[in-house]
Amino acid sequence: MARVLKKRSNKIGVPPGTLVHIGEEITKDVKITVLDYKNEEFQEQKMDSLEACIPFRDKDSVSWIDIEGIHQPATLEGLGKCYGFHPLVLEDIMATDQRPKMEDFGDYLFIVLKMIKYSGNNGGLDIEQVSLILGKNYLISFQEGKEGDVFNPVRERIRTSKGRIRNMGADYLAYALMDAVVDNYYLVLEKLGEEIESIEERLMADPVPETLRVIHGLKRDMIFLRKSVWPLREVVSVLERRESLLIAESTAIYLKDVYDHTIQVIDTVETYRDMLAGMLDIYLTSINNRLNSVMKVLTVIATIFMPLSFFASVYGMNFKFIPGLEWEWSFTVFNGAMGLIVIGMMLIFRKKKWL
Amino acid sequence: MARVLKKRSNKIGVPPGTLVHIGEEITKDVKITVLDYKNEEFQEQKMDSLEACIPFRDKDSVSWIDIEGIHQPATLEGLGKCYGFHPLVLEDIMATDQRPKMEDFGDYLFIVLKMIKYSGNNGGLDIEQVSLILGKNYLISFQEGKEGDVFNPVRERIRTSKGRIRNMGADYLAYALMDAVVDNYYLVLEKLGEEIESIEERLMADPVPETLRVIHGLKRDMIFLRKSVWPLREVVSVLERRESLLIAESTAIYLKDVYDHTIQVIDTVETYRDMLAGMLDIYLTSINNRLNSVMKVLTVIATIFMPLSFFASVYGMNFKFIPGLEWEWSFTVFNGAMGLIVIGMMLIFRKKKWL
Amino acid sequence: MARVLKKRSNKIGVPPGTLVHIGEEITKDVKITVLDYKNEEFQEQKMDSLEACIPFRDKDSVSWIDIEGIHQPATLEGLGKCYGFHPLVLEDIMATDQRPKMEDFGDYLFIVLKMIKYSGNNGGLDIEQVSLILGKNYLISFQEGKEGDVFNPVRERIRTSKGRIRNMGADYLAYALMDAVVDNYYLVLEKLGEEIESIEERLMADPVPETLRVIHGLKRDMIFLRKSVWPLREVVSVLERRESLLIAESTAIYLKDVYDHTIQVIDTVETYRDMLAGMLDIYLTSINNRLNSVMKVLTVIATIFMPLSFFASVYGMNFKFIPGLEWEWSFTVFNGAMGLIVIGMMLIFRKKKWL
Amino acid sequence: MARVLKKRSNKIGVPPGTLVHIGEEITKDVKITVLDYKNEEFQEQKMDSLEACIPFRDKDSVSWIDIEGIHQPATLEGLGKCYGFHPLVLEDIMATDQRPKMEDFGDYLFIVLKMIKYSGNNGGLDIEQVSLILGKNYLISFQEGKEGDVFNPVRERIRTSKGRIRNMGADYLAYALMDAVVDNYYLVLEKLGEEIESIEERLMADPVPETLRVIHGLKRDMIFLRKSVWPLREVVSVLERRESLLIAESTAIYLKDVYDHTIQVIDTVETYRDMLAGMLDIYLTSINNRLNSVMKVLTVIATIFMPLSFFASVYGMNFKFIPGLEWEWSFTVFNGAMGLIVIGMMLIFRKKKWL
Amino acid sequence: MARVLKKRSNKIGVPPGTLVHIGEEITKDVKITVLDYKNEEFQEQKMDSLEACIPFRDKDSVSWIDIEGIHQPATLEGLGKCYGFHPLVLEDIMATDQRPKMEDFGDYLFIVLKMIKYSGNNGGLDIEQVSLILGKNYLISFQEGKEGDVFNPVRERIRTSKGRIRNMGADYLAYALMDAVVDNYYLVLEKLGEEIESIEERLMADPVPETLRVIHGLKRDMIFLRKSVWPLREVVSVLERRESLLIAESTAIYLKDVYDHTIQVIDTVETYRDMLAGMLDIYLTSINNRLNSVMKVLTVIATIFMPLSFFASVYGMNFKFIPGLEWEWSFTVFNGAMGLIVIGMMLIFRKKKWL
Repeated sequence: MARVLKKRSNKIGVPPGTLVHIGEEITKDVKITVLDYKNEEFQEQKMDSLEACIPFRDKDSVSWIDIEGIHQPATLEGLGKCYGFHPLVLEDIMATDQRPKMEDFGDYLFIVLKMIKYSGNNGGLDIEQVSLILGKNYLISFQEGKEGDVFNPVRERIRTSKGRIRNMGADYLAYALMDAVVDNYYLVLEKLGEEIESIEERLMADPVPETLRVIHGLKRDMIFLRKSVWPLREVVSVLERRESLLIAESTAIYLKDVYDHTIQVIDTVETYRDMLAGMLDIYLTSINNRLNSVMKVLTVIATIFMPLSFFASVYGMNFKFIPGLEWEWSFTVFNGAMGLIVIGMMLIFRKKKWL
Repeated sequence: MARVLKKRSNKIGVPPGTLVHIGEEITKDVKITVLDYKNEEFQEQKMDSLEACIPFRDKDSVSWIDIEGIHQPATLEGLGKCYGFHPLVLEDIMATDQRPKMEDFGDYLFIVLKMIKYSGNNGGLDIEQVSLILGKNYLISFQEGKEGDVFNPVRERIRTSKGRIRNMGADYLAYALMDAVVDNYYLVLEKLGEEIESIEERLMADPVPETLRVIHGLKRDMIFLRKSVWPLREVVSVLERRESLLIAESTAIYLKDVYDHTIQVIDTVETYRDMLAGMLDIYLTSINNRLNSVMKVLTVIATIFMPLSFFASVYGMNFKFIPGLEWEWSFTVFNGAMGLIVIGMMLIFRKKKWL
Repeated sequence: MARVLKKRSNKIGVPPGTLVHIGEEITKDVKITVLDYKNEEFQEQKMDSLEACIPFRDKDSVSWIDIEGIHQPATLEGLGKCYGFHPLVLEDIMATDQRPKMEDFGDYLFIVLKMIKYSGNNGGLDIEQVSLILGKNYLISFQEGKEGDVFNPVRERIRTSKGRIRNMGADYLAYALMDAVVDNYYLVLEKLGEEIESIEERLMADPVPETLRVIHGLKRDMIFLRKSVWPLREVVSVLERRESLLIAESTAIYLKDVYDHTIQVIDTVETYRDMLAGMLDIYLTSINNRLNSVMKVLTVIATIFMPLSFFASVYGMNFKFIPGLEWEWSFTVFNGAMGLIVIGMMLIFRKKKWL
Repeated sequence: MARVLKKRSNKIGVPPGTLVHIGEEITKDVKITVLDYKNEEFQEQKMDSLEACIPFRDKDSVSWIDIEGIHQPATLEGLGKCYGFHPLVLEDIMATDQRPKMEDFGDYLFIVLKMIKYSGNNGGLDIEQVSLILGKNYLISFQEGKEGDVFNPVRERIRTSKGRIRNMGADYLAYALMDAVVDNYYLVLEKLGEEIESIEERLMADPVPETLRVIHGLKRDMIFLRKSVWPLREVVSVLERRESLLIAESTAIYLKDVYDHTIQVIDTVETYRDMLAGMLDIYLTSINNRLNSVMKVLTVIATIFMPLSFFASVYGMNFKFIPGLEWEWSFTVFNGAMGLIVIGMMLIFRKKKWL
Repeated sequence: MARVLKKRSNKIGVPPGTLVHIGEEITKDVKITVLDYKNEEFQEQKMDSLEACIPFRDKDSVSWIDIEGIHQPATLEGLGKCYGFHPLVLEDIMATDQRPKMEDFGDYLFIVLKMIKYSGNNGGLDIEQVSLILGKNYLISFQEGKEGDVFNPVRERIRTSKGRIRNMGADYLAYALMDAVVDNYYLVLEKLGEEIESIEERLMADPVPETLRVIHGLKRDMIFLRKSVWPLREVVSVLERRESLLIAESTAIYLKDVYDHTIQVIDTVETYRDMLAGMLDIYLTSINNRLNSVMKVLTVIATIFMPLSFFASVYGMNFKFIPGLEWEWSFTVFNGAMGLIVIGMMLIFRKKKWL
């Protein structure tokens, strides 16, 4: 399950720009894939080391270098030197607890995103940080190296030259990846929405404590989603305003579309938060309602049988002189009187709407 | 009932600008109506296909092309090509989960609105997306194709040349449609307001669990209304400021009127939200009040009859030597004493205001 | 009692600028009074029809035309044509559900205010809309025509030439009327404040359900007051900044005073809202406190008498061989033991602070 | 105790600029003290009437005219005419329900502050309005005339020429007075903070209803403090930006210091509000906790003794044929069985953590 | 434990710029350490008095003068005079209740920070104020003199010339210290986060009152953290924008990094606050849930045994004529009937899901 704060203690005190991996322990090898394309040309390569990527730096075609695994400082450092990235950029790539952000370094843009997966069984969200470095004719993407990503449709579109992607620059590729990330939020929200609606139905019918646990879990999920999406709005908005020359005008309109989607995701998250808060209120009130009806039963029973028991006890006393003990119909009369009391009480309770 | 998030999964991964219908499954045919007018001239036509609308593009008169049904990508694509709309515009028209928004493409404006119907029986709201494309001398409106719309009064005004509509341009028509949509919100709010007030009266008199369900439903409705109206404010405000040349100065003052109405609707929604939140508090407190009075009854009964029963039990013990068992007036004295205890307790409870 | 939303359904679908009365049904005649003054000159006239007011349009003196009753479209239309008011202005005057607002039409200003009366007996507020049209040398005020208004002191000042009002222009008259409206809010707040304070005292001493109803009513009143006063702040602020040439510099400083009062009213409303919210919390907590003490009484009684009754029952069993039945002092010893149990329990409860 | 709104009814309807005293009835005489100083020169005088102050108007030295008592319109009017103050300024000085504010009249500044005293015994705050009029070489301060003020240290510094006050202008004196007022807020907050902390300790140990009353009182105090301090921030900030020529640059840095203090006071008030809100939650939860433990005791007792009593009653029935009645060990066996039941139940409850 | 407001009473009334120590009583000697470095040169000295620091003022190398202990006005005054600091700066250094702030005095910057330690055992936070004065080639840091600080890694980096610190100016040193302070917040948040998560697990399983106390304590900690971090954001943001010439461009990018961290810390604090608020809700609801199940047990027991006891009492009455008393199977039949009642009730309760 996602955690609010990742362990950062091993990083305290080191000079800025020192590459320290912050995040889940990962031991898999770093996987590097390069997709290089321009109009009709296209090639896809799996690389062994980052050094092999260097030739793509100065090629005229668009190169997408996808790096899965950011836990090896050495390889990142090599790449950084070759491309001339600022050490703080590399440091941020390795620290997977960044907020989504965009930084403009003149000849390249550094973008941090959050890829969210919904791991249904244990109810939590799985968050993976994606860093993009967008240069004039290259895009380098860094993933934490967890199983799976959301970029397959984009890869497929490049391979099969579907849509206009092969005719556009690296900025359009960056847009496509961001769009894929944001589209994926819809999927997560859809699933969370289904859960919310299924709880809502059960909520008033049968407010079991388990429901409380699920609502609480969903509220946490919303907090995490919110942290991932809110800053993204600012990121996309800045990109869309084309303050960097790396973003072509033809791409800006697509970024506006991503912006709209981001706003919509934020809207939905806020709506779900509102709904969950409302559901907690309903839950609390339902429990109080229940308590009320339980207490009414108890009170009805006690109010009926306590007097009855007392009257029976009275005739069970061992006084010698109690009127009626000898009379033949006493028992019948007593039972009749008790019956009348019960009926009378019942009528009172019915009138009070307790029954 | 309206849903927070529409199913978008089938859209994930396709290139931008691909037309995919997002929304309720609709199988009806697309209905196209054209109203073409200028001063005294007026003609109304039902079209079979969108191609038939093309001639209206370059006519001097104002043409309102109303398209009910947006689930057929092919027809939309044809229209888009003919009028030169951006693919993202067509994509947004088909995706019925848009927020209200306005986009300026220079020679046409793209406006998204939400038409809300109150479907009284099941308590929910029915939301239909309306997209408007406003050009120099044409207005194309796209509806989802659900039963009924709110534009009949506008149609009637065009047909009968009531008011000044026939003498004004396409921008005034766009205003008229937006005004009809916003006016309709008043109707919905009126009905919701009646429900809120009827609950409020019952609330303190008789807080049944059913009330809770209705309050919860109304809170949801308010969330949906809010999502539809808040962004509209921004839309109308931008139009009114006349940043696009497509809006004439004489129309701006009418848009200011729509803007005022939008603010008023938002105000009312917020007021209702406040009132519903207050009602939930009242409800919860009333339940607690009830519990209190139930418990008081129980406590009064127990406090009176438990001691009495004990005293009766004491004289029911089988000890041989219990003083008074043989005395003739024991039973009378016992009953008298018990009576005094009851009266005494009653007085105490009355003083404590429990009775 | 004031309602959140007035019935507007009969207005839906009509062209903009159509005069439809929205508000309480009023059948009284329209009452028109003209006060015309300049320095020493002063005349006051009751008019039969609006046409009679036309001569005042071009007079050099300041004319205050006060119209009580806005339910007759014909008369308003006549006035509008004569003075050249925009149809939307007349429409807004007749729709009594406007928010307070100010609109600048160049040669006249249109101002909407809310006059609030506190109708003590049924606890609600009575809101009447006042529209002002301020021209170069005239001021037309439109009231809904309900019984009474807050302008009498202003009338008196004009009649008796008290203060500087007779030497100032129509803008100062507008200020004087707005000041009278805002001053009246203090009166309403004073009365609501007294009610709040009287509840507050009773609140902790004796939290009866009736209190809840009153708090709820006051919260509603605050919502209405807020809706009337908040937008007024913007109105006065714009006037005070003298963006219109109709406001003289010597009047601006007086408008600043009204602005200060408006802020103070808003402050007070917010403070009362805070206090009412706090009182609801206190109320809920007090009820829980009460429940607690009721339950303690029940528990004490049950804990004392349930064991006692059991022991008495034990010696009431019909076993042949029960030790002590025959012993002379059994009853005394039994009673003594029971007494000791009672005393012991009492001590325990005292220690637990339940008694 | 401080009230939210002062009685203003006697003011409604009078022309603006009419001097009407709003506030607590005060019958004491007006006390006027003048401190006149410049470098080495210093004189202190008690005046009989405001007219005696006029000579100080044009003196070259700094004159601080301190007026305690603002309930006599005549004297204020005289002063106003002599110094040329705007009637609205005098009106505001007499109305003690002003918000803190600053108004720039060109050749003098009008500043309104709130002096707060903590009157420990009845738990409330005592608020006194202080108005300052700062001219080129004079400062006139108006107090309501309540017992005591916070300016003694400033007076002492002038008398003994401590610090640089004697060498600075009237603006520095104004700063010194404002600083004294704000410093005093710390004192009040310190005392309220002590109360809050003492409650906090008792809160969980022993949540008595009295605590609720104290928390409620403190919340009210915070509301009043907030109303006095929030607008002050704006006042000091405007002064510090030196928009008026009456503020020397050397004084601005000291005003920045007052500004910092004001922010800190606001921060503390907000923190206390947060803490009090939290304490109310804790209190409510503690009460519920208590109820829970009370109910557990009741349930344990009832669950143990109700079955026991029933079994004892069974053997107290008068059926002729009940097995075991004649058996010698019946009573022992019965008691043993009952004992086992009690022990068994105890174990169950212990497992449930109810004991 | 940290306190909201430090005792300031002894400061009231003294002239501004008077040095009065506000904060915890400290009697230790003031400890002065100087680190002086430039590229290869480096020297570290412990000083006896502040006068000994004066030679470093005009040296070309970067001098970091670290002063632990700010309770001696005399020494501070000496330093202030030598370096020409404004008296208000020295006053603020000695008053340890400052908010984080930055003030630009032209040739030096004055920065106030809060160093936070987590003192695990008693659950509170320990806050120490750090003031920095950054000049052209010197940095003076003032600590309250509590045990330990967070600057050791920075010292180590200077001593061992790790990273680029020895080649950079005093502004980079200031950055390094601020970075160390902010990094330390992560440590505190990590520990608080662990506590929050451990509570969260226990929360629903077993809501003991102790949990409430811990949640309350953590909420307080969050309030304090918030007060320390929020204003810091503004401080760093202003520095990063390089409005002062004392900040080199090469340092600005590092300050941007600190800014990002500050935002992240704020984000985390807000998230924790949200989570704690949610946990309080959960806790309250869990308690209500518990109460519900306790009451169900009570009601079940009472509902079963009260009627049974009554029936047994009936046959214990001493009426002479009760049918069945003589019958041989009466007791068996009675017990059987009672058994049936119990079973029947159990079935009803099971259906109601009370068992």
